Amino acid sequence: MTEKIYYNSWLSEYKKPFGAVPINQKVTFTITCKWPVIEPVYLIVQKDFGDTFEVKMHSIGQFQYQVTIQLTEGQGLYYYFFKVLVQKDQKDEVVYYGNNQRFKGGEGQVYKQEHEVKPYQLTSYLYTDPSPKWYREGIAYHIFVDRFYNGNENGKVLNPKQNSFLYANQEDLPMYIKDKNGEIVRWEFYGGNLTGIIQKLPYLKEMGITILYLSPLFEARSNHKYDTGDYLKIDPMFGDENTFKELIQEAKEFEMRIILDGVFNHSGADSRYFNRYGTYPGMGAYQSKESRYFEWYTFEKFPDRYESWWGVKDLPKLNTQNPRVQSFLYKDQNSVIRKWSKLGLGGWRLDVADELSDDVLKGMRLALEETVEDSVLIGEVWEDASNKIAYNKRRHYIEGGQLHGAMNYPFREIIIGLLQRSITPQEAAEKWMNLKENYPAEAFKSNFNNIGTHDTERIYTVLNQDVTKLKQAMALLFIVPGVPCLYYGDEAGVAGKADPDNRRMYPWGKENKEIQTFVKKLAIIRSKETSLKEGDFYSFSQDELMGIVRFSNQEEFVIMILNTANKEKRLEIADIPEQYDFKFSSFLDENHLNHIQLQPNKAILLVKEKSRSIKTTII
Amino acid sequence: MTEKIYYNSWLSEYKKPFGAVPINQKVTFTITCKWPVIEPVYLIVQKDFGDTFEVKMHSIGQFQYQVTIQLTEGQGLYYYFFKVLVQKDQKDEVVYYGNNQRFKGGEGQVYKQEHEVKPYQLTSYLYTDPSPKWYREGIAYHIFVDRFYNGNENGKVLNPKQNSFLYANQEDLPMYIKDKNGEIVRWEFYGGNLTGIIQKLPYLKEMGITILYLSPLFEARSNHKYDTGDYLKIDPMFGDENTFKELIQEAKEFEMRIILDGVFNHSGADSRYFNRYGTYPGMGAYQSKESRYFEWYTFEKFPDRYESWWGVKDLPKLNTQNPRVQSFLYKDQNSVIRKWSKLGLGGWRLDVADELSDDVLKGMRLALEETVEDSVLIGEVWEDASNKIAYNKRRHYIEGGQLHGAMNYPFREIIIGLLQRSITPQEAAEKWMNLKENYPAEAFKSNFNNIGTHDTERIYTVLNQDVTKLKQAMALLFIVPGVPCLYYGDEAGVAGKADPDNRRMYPWGKENKEIQTFVKKLAIIRSKETSLKEGDFYSFSQDELMGIVRFSNQEEFVIMILNTANKEKRLEIADIPEQYDFKFSSFLDENHLNHIQLQPNKAILLVKEKSRSIKTTII
Repeated sequence: MTEKIYYNSWLSEYKKPFGAVPINQKVTFTITCKWPVIEPVYLIVQKDFGDTFEVKMHSIGQFQYQVTIQLTEGQGLYYYFFKVLVQKDQKDEVVYYGNNQRFKGGEGQVYKQEHEVKPYQLTSYLYTDPSPKWYREGIAYHIFVDRFYNGNENGKVLNPKQNSFLYANQEDLPMYIKDKNGEIVRWEFYGGNLTGIIQKLPYLKEMGITILYLSPLFEARSNHKYDTGDYLKIDPMFGDENTFKELIQEAKEFEMRIILDGVFNHSGADSRYFNRYGTYPGMGAYQSKESRYFEWYTFEKFPDRYESWWGVKDLPKLNTQNPRVQSFLYKDQNSVIRKWSKLGLGGWRLDVADELSDDVLKGMRLALEETVEDSVLIGEVWEDASNKIAYNKRRHYIEGGQLHGAMNYPFREIIIGLLQRSITPQEAAEKWMNLKENYPAEAFKSNFNNIGTHDTERIYTVLNQDVTKLKQAMALLFIVPGVPCLYYGDEAGVAGKADPDNRRMYPWGKENKEIQTFVKKLAIIRSKETSLKEGDFYSFSQDELMGIVRFSNQEEFVIMILNTANKEKRLEIADIPEQYDFKFSSFLDENHLNHIQLQPNKAILLVKEKSRSIKTTII
Repeated sequence: MTEKIYYNSWLSEYKKPFGAVPINQKVTFTITCKWPVIEPVYLIVQKDFGDTFEVKMHSIGQFQYQVTIQLTEGQGLYYYFFKVLVQKDQKDEVVYYGNNQRFKGGEGQVYKQEHEVKPYQLTSYLYTDPSPKWYREGIAYHIFVDRFYNGNENGKVLNPKQNSFLYANQEDLPMYIKDKNGEIVRWEFYGGNLTGIIQKLPYLKEMGITILYLSPLFEARSNHKYDTGDYLKIDPMFGDENTFKELIQEAKEFEMRIILDGVFNHSGADSRYFNRYGTYPGMGAYQSKESRYFEWYTFEKFPDRYESWWGVKDLPKLNTQNPRVQSFLYKDQNSVIRKWSKLGLGGWRLDVADELSDDVLKGMRLALEETVEDSVLIGEVWEDASNKIAYNKRRHYIEGGQLHGAMNYPFREIIIGLLQRSITPQEAAEKWMNLKENYPAEAFKSNFNNIGTHDTERIYTVLNQDVTKLKQAMALLFIVPGVPCLYYGDEAGVAGKADPDNRRMYPWGKENKEIQTFVKKLAIIRSKETSLKEGDFYSFSQDELMGIVRFSNQEEFVIMILNTANKEKRLEIADIPEQYDFKFSSFLDENHLNHIQLQPNKAILLVKEKSRSIKTTII
């Protein structure tokens, strides 16, 4: 029946414009019904958590029905599908046309029962909210500060914590020191610090890095510092405020900006505010109901039962809805966000953004903008940020006024799935296109892309230390839309299973030069090619071949084709399915490329600049 | 009945000579029987694990019976008691006179049944085997090398082990890093080394130290190094052979000799010989039955079931009865003991001496004597070394030709018991006299005394950080016969519960000066007073007062009296019970001291030098 009723959200002849739209935008839907239809055909639209509308579609001939509607129900998600009354075997029958079962957009399918229909998602955003150019066009490097470089003479570790351990050798493997109950009893450090980062700026510059994303810097007991002890103080193991200023200034000299990791959902239990262990002077929330910080936290039963992040007692949840907490974190002129941003930060990456309400995110964004022109706010979201539900609420992270973009774990999953062959090129193409469709275009370009972070297994280990696959993963990271963010050491061939093994010390002097050289080359391409900075994005598949296309125009594009098969493959350009408005074959035809031959598990990178011939690289 | 039959092994009128005697010595026993006795009275002597003899005693008048016997059954222990046929209530009755129930010598008691009799112990040694004068008259300092001092510039730790941890601060508390099963997964180090000891020789000299007893030095994975990896190599974290030679030479300049901890019962599993982890080149016993080291160990089932020290799989037991192992450890000219002794060692302390057979101990002693004149061999024995049974064999450690002395844990127990008031002064006096009686006199003077080691809780902690009690314990340590051995840091007021807490880093710059100054004073007294070096030893009690007496003659003596009561006590010198041949009161009478007044829990130290008046110190 699908052949007779057809709709495809990716093609402009069926939906216009493509993808997410601003509020009050008019959108035109067209559906083909090669069937005896009893008119009218209906477009059924449901506002997310809101009303449902049945809109009559009118015939425009050639079996097509069309309607243009205006999205007047405000920002957020609209779900839609079609209802058609057909004549079948002499009987009237209602059928529905909705999204495919995988909920991925594009071609849909016919459903018999209304309750079975998967609708299409249509994202409507508040306003176009582009991230600053330096960010959007930048290349980021994610530094887990303790594990990058110790800039002190003689490798002396700065101000070690009381009762803590230092790794005896930089190449020792990370481990947690736990008691029988699995609780961490002492923290262990390699001794990386801000001076170390300053000293390595030339290296980062050489690697093409323009953005440093630093793991949390504020005083805390742990090595990761997601358990803030004092939001107004640089951890003394990392340096002090002057070292930090120096880093910002030096980075500026190297044309780099800094994004800080902001951990505002919770503090450490060992903090100036909660002060569970009495480490800090003054009275913490844990110590007395009279504490000025008492209202900052939520006690179910004082003092030992309190809300904390995922039940981790070491991370008591801050009540970020409390006005005093808001004043402290971002509203006051000398609030945490403003104090540090003023020094010249590029912006912040908000830890566990899901835990912060839309209002808080807006407030933080406002505070940041009031403080630094041209700043960026991104957040930790693990899923499709366009339709994330957190704590029973649909989130509006990227619909304007909150985050410029999110950490793009979905892309990481696609890249890994492809290279591990756990998903097919067709599935990968579909997932990519689906995200492109769901995200507002500016947010899509402003995602903070990664193939590994401090919270995941190292990409090199995920890929079984296959250098070729690692290079392919890197190439994908640098080609897809969004800001590529390298996790420190991934460019040097650092391996590592899950936390803590993914936090090994950067192997200074023992880098894998082959990988490093390749990544450097990718960074050059990324920073040079307009198509990668501004170009449109398509992904397609043919059998076991995966294609990624970025293009500004027919003169300027980057294409990567990956053979995921264990055998040699030949792609006839003419045979590429024409799935999109964009006609891929025309690009290559003009360059006299009519087929591509690929060895098993190899990829080809085609880079075309204006007035030049295509440069190819086999990976 | 005891009043009527009486014997006291501590008095020369009953037994002569006192205490242990060499083989073939004649010993005279006299017993008083104020009872209608049917003669003869019998002395019953049983050679340990040997024959029993009934010897008739002859009347010497005044209700006394006597016999002199020659100990012809060789070295070792003789047990004896008396059998007397008495008339009681018109009936003949056999009664026995033996040792007291506590088996402590001195006054005994009457028993009705032969099988209930506790005999007296009479130790008979092979020959008088005095330790060298430098040792016997020395003051020792026990250094756990990793925890004493890091002599490197900038505190850099020398050659850290792969995958190990360093304590971040010297004042951090020690801990083991274990997995869920309680197995150590990584070793942790403070970084003390031989250069550090060299640099601290002036300090040790100032403290009066003349002997350094060092924890094991040979290459090993752990921080304690009781798991030897290579017997022929100084652990690289400590230094190398040259550093060690330098230490020996420098110590010589400071008139100090070095005693090494010899761990010969077992090696580490991670050793050149066992090589369980393949860390060492060549084939270890664990790796192949063809290994030249295979016969060094005892496999119950190759390779995973093997004999080890106390079932600790990390410490496979060396087969020290194997001639090749013996050649390697001590017989060959370049054997372990000879190689290191040649450099100028003072001697060795043998770890777990109980585990080494008498033959092996003799062989080691011989090897040592052939290599170094004037050397000492002592051993780790936790109990009364005169009558220790280990692995069902009575041991002959201190009967000549094996150990000069043993680590004197029994003295430690008495001192702690007294100060904690878990034993009474009477019990303490009895225990001390008992050990004096059981040990050959030279061995008794050559014991290696301690009030704490790396295997016990710190004395300061045992005594609840009571500085006065700590000083009293120190005073006792320096006064009693044997070589006082300070556990590093005890003189500085270092606290610590059981292993690993008893192995904290020495607190350089943060010493308790009061304790330190006091210990320094004790060391001066110890090194100056002839009575403490050569004098006889008695301990007595009166009520809650404990007395320790060392004297060369009535002109030269050191006496310490401790009031263990919570109230003030007055000791009338004339009232002191005259329990021994030695008449205590006469000493003090001559010095016009007729009473001593002592505050609760205080002690008085009386030091008398020739032609001088008594010097007193209240502790």
